[in-house]
Amino acid sequence: MVLYLIGTGLNDERDMTLGGIELMKAADKIYLESYTSILSQRADLMKYTNGKQLIEADRKMVEENCDEIIEEARNKSIVLLVVGDPFCATTHSDLVLRAYEKDVKVEVQHNASIISAIGCTGLQVYRFGETVSIPFFDGSWQPSSFYDKIKANIERGLHTLCLLDIKVKEQTIENMMRNRPIFEPPRFMTVNQAISQLFILEDKLKQSVISPNSLAIGVARIGSSDQKIVSGTLCELSDTDFGSPLHSLVICHPDLHLIEQRFFEIYRKK
Amino acid sequence: MVLYLIGTGLNDERDMTLGGIELMKAADKIYLESYTSILSQRADLMKYTNGKQLIEADRKMVEENCDEIIEEARNKSIVLLVVGDPFCATTHSDLVLRAYEKDVKVEVQHNASIISAIGCTGLQVYRFGETVSIPFFDGSWQPSSFYDKIKANIERGLHTLCLLDIKVKEQTIENMMRNRPIFEPPRFMTVNQAISQLFILEDKLKQSVISPNSLAIGVARIGSSDQKIVSGTLCELSDTDFGSPLHSLVICHPDLHLIEQRFFEIYRKK
Repeated sequence: MVLYLIGTGLNDERDMTLGGIELMKAADKIYLESYTSILSQRADLMKYTNGKQLIEADRKMVEENCDEIIEEARNKSIVLLVVGDPFCATTHSDLVLRAYEKDVKVEVQHNASIISAIGCTGLQVYRFGETVSIPFFDGSWQPSSFYDKIKANIERGLHTLCLLDIKVKEQTIENMMRNRPIFEPPRFMTVNQAISQLFILEDKLKQSVISPNSLAIGVARIGSSDQKIVSGTLCELSDTDFGSPLHSLVICHPDLHLIEQRFFEIYRKK
Repeated sequence: MVLYLIGTGLNDERDMTLGGIELMKAADKIYLESYTSILSQRADLMKYTNGKQLIEADRKMVEENCDEIIEEARNKSIVLLVVGDPFCATTHSDLVLRAYEKDVKVEVQHNASIISAIGCTGLQVYRFGETVSIPFFDGSWQPSSFYDKIKANIERGLHTLCLLDIKVKEQTIENMMRNRPIFEPPRFMTVNQAISQLFILEDKLKQSVISPNSLAIGVARIGSSDQKIVSGTLCELSDTDFGSPLHSLVICHPDLHLIEQRFFEIYRKK
């Protein structure tokens, strides 16, 4: 049989593909990954399981029970639902790799991902350099590799898509030490938080990568009926309310092309 | 009313989203863009039009009748079906921009695009630099900007996704001059042709970007049941038969990460 990795797209169950729905209905068992997502899709997806349970799979579960899931797929039809496109997280690549190495068949149903959907800002998708992730700073833990990558992208005339941190099922150190299964409420980085971290790094590293006048576009809930796209300077966006998650941020190359400029004006903070 | 841009995904009608199907069924009029695609979806998509025609829209049509389509959308529900994700071609950005500027509402149904689906090669999607397009050389017309971009990506430790040229509804210069609506058969660049063009540029520019030993991954028909992924050196891939279109090519950064290496071995040309 087969291990199916099915992308669920950007938002709700209307983003599922026909092929994905078919496979879900026919599957013996369905896992839903819960560590890169906000799970707003869960209830809606239940409509298409033919009465089967939707088994929540957090990162630990997928990583630790990886071999078990693969063994199940040897004789059964196993679905793992993944938010966005299945290959945009390393954990899934690792799962697929192990399945291949054990000669278990893997099939993928691709779906929309923020990596291409970000084109809805009007910025040309081919003009993006390396995508970066901005993690929540924690006290003195302030990694800066994303700052260097934004710098390198700008030097090459490119925009940068910044994916903002998601903390789901995190434990405090105390709870972890005592092995207590108590989890902190999920946290999703806002555009505002991302900008303030960028300012902190600029203050510290002083490479003139980021300034209050840098052009940027903040987005929230892309692809949903209440998506929000606002362009402006980082200073302007730093107090813009983007509402509920998920948020992403684009740091634009300062020289926008003509079409990009016109989109930028349309989305400009009023 | 609304102008809906609906992504059709990578292959057949099973890649359509539920939301996209709903909108197609309810639409007053449906256009299907025919210039970035191979139209293999056409017959299948007809199942979901509720008896409406699927109006073929080539690039000329979308560009020249842009204002007309937008005016239609002022009072009707107009769908434009676009292969992949709607914002991956500049023509569509231009259409959306004009609609916004005329105060006509636009909604987008995103879908899978090769830009994120390329992750199925096992290369990390975040480790890709700027995407390039390789156009068919024509006599002495041998543009080389993609060669420079591959070079810049490698220098920064990044892979390069090369989208290969598609020529649909092209006219000979003679037919164009005489205004005869006679079109050449569609042409799709193969992985082999792309590689031979890369070798031509290396011979000419001698920047040591491309060599017969460069690591690369060729892909064809990604997301379909007969997709093909083959990794190897450019020399090995230069005579690999990838079958029918569409093809794409990844020029890898020579230092693959550990997981990337293991995928590379799995897809290695035997």
